Amino acid sequence: MFDITATYTDQYELTMGQAYFLSGLKDEQAVFDYFFREIPFDGGYVMFAGLMDLLSILEDFRFDKKDLEFMQSQGFNPDYLAYLKGFRFMGTIHAPSEGDLVFPTRPVLRVEGTLIETQIIETVLLNIVNFESLIATKASRMRLVAENSILIDFGLRRAQGAGGYHAARAAVIGGFDATSNARAARDYCLQASGTMAHSYVESHADELSAFRSFAAARPDDCVLLVDTYDTLKSGVPHAITVAKEMEKKGHRLIGIRLDSGDLAYLAKRSRALLDEANLQYVKISASNQIDEYVIRSLVQQKAPIEVFGIGTNLVTGKPDAALDGVYKLARVEGRPVIKLSENTSKITLPDKKQVWRAIDHKGLFLGADVVGLDDEGHIAEMHHPFSPHQSFAIEPNETEPLLHPVMIQGKVVYNPPSLSQTAQYARERLAMLPAEYKRFENPHAYKVGISSRLKALRDRLIAQHRKNPKGV
Amino acid sequence: MFDITATYTDQYELTMGQAYFLSGLKDEQAVFDYFFREIPFDGGYVMFAGLMDLLSILEDFRFDKKDLEFMQSQGFNPDYLAYLKGFRFMGTIHAPSEGDLVFPTRPVLRVEGTLIETQIIETVLLNIVNFESLIATKASRMRLVAENSILIDFGLRRAQGAGGYHAARAAVIGGFDATSNARAARDYCLQASGTMAHSYVESHADELSAFRSFAAARPDDCVLLVDTYDTLKSGVPHAITVAKEMEKKGHRLIGIRLDSGDLAYLAKRSRALLDEANLQYVKISASNQIDEYVIRSLVQQKAPIEVFGIGTNLVTGKPDAALDGVYKLARVEGRPVIKLSENTSKITLPDKKQVWRAIDHKGLFLGADVVGLDDEGHIAEMHHPFSPHQSFAIEPNETEPLLHPVMIQGKVVYNPPSLSQTAQYARERLAMLPAEYKRFENPHAYKVGISSRLKALRDRLIAQHRKNPKGV
Repeated sequence: MFDITATYTDQYELTMGQAYFLSGLKDEQAVFDYFFREIPFDGGYVMFAGLMDLLSILEDFRFDKKDLEFMQSQGFNPDYLAYLKGFRFMGTIHAPSEGDLVFPTRPVLRVEGTLIETQIIETVLLNIVNFESLIATKASRMRLVAENSILIDFGLRRAQGAGGYHAARAAVIGGFDATSNARAARDYCLQASGTMAHSYVESHADELSAFRSFAAARPDDCVLLVDTYDTLKSGVPHAITVAKEMEKKGHRLIGIRLDSGDLAYLAKRSRALLDEANLQYVKISASNQIDEYVIRSLVQQKAPIEVFGIGTNLVTGKPDAALDGVYKLARVEGRPVIKLSENTSKITLPDKKQVWRAIDHKGLFLGADVVGLDDEGHIAEMHHPFSPHQSFAIEPNETEPLLHPVMIQGKVVYNPPSLSQTAQYARERLAMLPAEYKRFENPHAYKVGISSRLKALRDRLIAQHRKNPKGV
Repeated sequence: MFDITATYTDQYELTMGQAYFLSGLKDEQAVFDYFFREIPFDGGYVMFAGLMDLLSILEDFRFDKKDLEFMQSQGFNPDYLAYLKGFRFMGTIHAPSEGDLVFPTRPVLRVEGTLIETQIIETVLLNIVNFESLIATKASRMRLVAENSILIDFGLRRAQGAGGYHAARAAVIGGFDATSNARAARDYCLQASGTMAHSYVESHADELSAFRSFAAARPDDCVLLVDTYDTLKSGVPHAITVAKEMEKKGHRLIGIRLDSGDLAYLAKRSRALLDEANLQYVKISASNQIDEYVIRSLVQQKAPIEVFGIGTNLVTGKPDAALDGVYKLARVEGRPVIKLSENTSKITLPDKKQVWRAIDHKGLFLGADVVGLDDEGHIAEMHHPFSPHQSFAIEPNETEPLLHPVMIQGKVVYNPPSLSQTAQYARERLAMLPAEYKRFENPHAYKVGISSRLKALRDRLIAQHRKNPKGV
């Protein structure tokens, strides 16, 4: 849907690119890590999403004529612009499978390539992965409490501009069943869903004739919105009348939708009216300011709602609105690098790394990941990153590597799963995460450890910088 | 940037469209209102934005081949699909000037046309106007407290996917000076801004050589990021060294950027070091988790910061993330319609309307808008919408109409101002709004009144529905 060219980036990537170009550093080999520091929604995990969109953007990432004209008008160097004309991302990316669960401060993506190419893709990588991961995470929280109800994304109208497009896809990874967003459904092969608005009812002389004309136009896929005038006195009785008329013609009303008022009360009363009319098969769907807490409350109240339509709170990732993912240099020309900070927990992990996930004999996540150098085999001991006296032994066969090659030298190198396979994988990984990490209130913190070699390297680099604070 | 086709909509617009088509209602004449109910950020106003993007999308809004194939695969009626092949929006839109200030519950846009065309554009209208207005409003709050500082959008990396694109434009309407988003700068002719990241410093053997190489590449537009290792012991002294070297070559360092730590303290200490070195001209810029409250606090502390870079909090409109704008039918085939609700304040205003803004003899907004029927001339008396015994007289020449024709029969009919003219207009309108509506804490509520004729019409429709709750 997007004509995303290589100026879909922060200007500073382009100015740094020019400086790398002019100073002869552009082809130095770099390793960048993508990771985040805080889990949104006060939750216990993040669901990784956006990988396939990112890779397909990167395969086609180039400066078009308008980009180069724009940069020329900004005074960029002509030799640099000539170089950018042929620019392609030819780097290598390691990542978890899309839909996997990831945790703070350890690498989620590892990007290798020349300094200039790994720098220029920074912004688009952050933009896509931060947002899709935010929305997949939010969606998965709703799925956790919605039991077997159908969840539908209604968010496009309140989405942050075209952000609604990627959000519809990410919601399906997180466990949603369908979207109202027709364009996203078209392009990502999602199930599209949508019936009527209040305006449809109001555009007719009365509610009953509106319901009748809608049922005539959609005899086998009809959901009636029942709250335009009065849900229990008007909307539901009219829906029952039309459902009975449909039965006579050999059709069945699919459902009714509640969009205002006390959803638990109205669902129960509507269910009773429908059941009295022998319309047990008519489903009740509900929308209006729903989030994971509202779903949980409605389920606890045994509200007979089988379909939830969720807009703003899903599609904007309220109340957090952003995952704080960052992209940090870990190594350049074989030299491990580190970013210091007055805040110890913000000091980065140097060098090219792998993340190992510990899994117990029942196949459940053990509650810790271990970060080691990429060339380490089994890591026998993990250390707390900052507390010097905490370390744990790790048994062989207890860990699996999290980062796999997904792009090598600019080419996608794995067979991308379908979106429903990704959603299925996400469900399986979520099932492997113990409940205490999934609860909404004060979830357990998923631990991170570092290997002895990585710890020694990092401590040495910190000491070097502390000894010579004016730069090595 | 976007290939926005007519499936950039909620599926229900398409299913309702089919029902209008099949039931012969599609060409009935409709009037829809766009309005919102809640002001985001606990603020006192919303800055209207997104109009030009909306109109340019609508002028080109059509179903392409893939859209029609998708809809065919969804089982839509073949005659309806044949009709949609030639679909164009040929309706008429009235709106305030972009950048004007608008308030809850009164029309912001009035859309007239056939039922089917006004229905199908609902979602894209909400998507664009809700989001750009949210961001322009957020940006204007930062401008209100930033005095003469330069404000730069740094948000693309934390934006909600491609939402960052429209956000960059909306931020400029709200008072921002520049954006890091190169693509938005390219397409909207915004000022692009960007210098270096920590990775640039780390990619060099030491901070001083990184600063030197960057200054060599950008001798006349160089801002150095000084917090990679230690702001006051390393970054600022190195920046001073390089600034002095630049002076010898006839250049001037533009600025330094602080991106962590206590910004007020570091800015004051850095300013003192720069001034001692006779570098009064080197500006200090600051970024990292800045919002309107942080800016206000830094200004109150007299932190010598001349440039603010603002990312997540601007570009996502934190903490609200969405403006709750809705699109409601007001009239169809000459018949005024109303949406009832158990919540009185959610009852809509029927029929085709105009909004009048009261302005005092000093040119300040008087604190109230009056909504009347479109064919009313001067409204002599305004009534509280729901409190029967409150009414006020209005003098002639005290009001101006808010809604002007911007699109007639599908064609844009005004000369669109440049973005800087729109930003200038926004500033002027904000200057006309008294301070008590602009303060962050418990701002005054901007009142709305309705004309005697509108009140009588609305009360009659409510009474009709109450008498016959099963639909008229």
